[in-house]
Amino acid sequence: MKLGRLNHIGIAVPSLAEAAARHAQLHGAEAVGAPIEMAEQGVRLCFVDLPNGQIELLEPLGALSPIHGFLARNPAGGQHHLCYEVPAIEAAHDWFVEQGARILGPIRTGAHGTPIFFIHPKDMGGVLTEIMEAPRHG
Amino acid sequence: MKLGRLNHIGIAVPSLAEAAARHAQLHGAEAVGAPIEMAEQGVRLCFVDLPNGQIELLEPLGALSPIHGFLARNPAGGQHHLCYEVPAIEAAHDWFVEQGARILGPIRTGAHGTPIFFIHPKDMGGVLTEIMEAPRHG
Repeated sequence: MKLGRLNHIGIAVPSLAEAAARHAQLHGAEAVGAPIEMAEQGVRLCFVDLPNGQIELLEPLGALSPIHGFLARNPAGGQHHLCYEVPAIEAAHDWFVEQGARILGPIRTGAHGTPIFFIHPKDMGGVLTEIMEAPRHG
Repeated sequence: MKLGRLNHIGIAVPSLAEAAARHAQLHGAEAVGAPIEMAEQGVRLCFVDLPNGQIELLEPLGALSPIHGFLARNPAGGQHHLCYEVPAIEAAHDWFVEQGARILGPIRTGAHGTPIFFIHPKDMGGVLTEIMEAPRHG
């Protein structure tokens, strides 16, 4: 198993509108995508395009959002997770399970429309890690 | 002012040896660089090459290392900072000062041998941010 490119860095924010405005100033207005609601995952998000990857800005959506706990500990927001691409999600899932890594929830569809899963930060050196099947281009 | 590519993601770790071994397993042994000591910044570090950027693993070096406080709050380690490239460090520094951002310490030489400075996370949506003059290639 070898992870592929870094797809995005997830950043939790108390206000998506404020964070999007700040990132537009830093990276150009054209770099900031439209907000996306993922109700079942409890997040409202937008992507910011960098020359070599993306930032995913995450705002809590709904009372049960997993972002609430993070923002309670980090009220200003902060780095929440890293997401790496793999060619095949099932093979990656099996490999991490074999290593004894704790998988958080089922394989599900992520914000880019491909299957993803999350690995517990305690099994990834403190970093909440998302594994994402790479989008097929062309 | 527009930030350039994401140069690296800084991750604080309690043990550089353990973190380097885990990243060698995830990204390939050839991706993990040799440890570098930066005594004046209180860190021992190594870079991990990703297809589209780098991870910087940071272990505290010396009693006054700024990483001790982070690891006291996050004993397993975790995401510590993001570093963006700019073409000219003085112009970037002046721009952030004009915006009222709090700059942490002087412009100094970073691990890639080019000038860098850090911006307080409170002025960057909770994300400790390093600004780095891009290395000149060719």
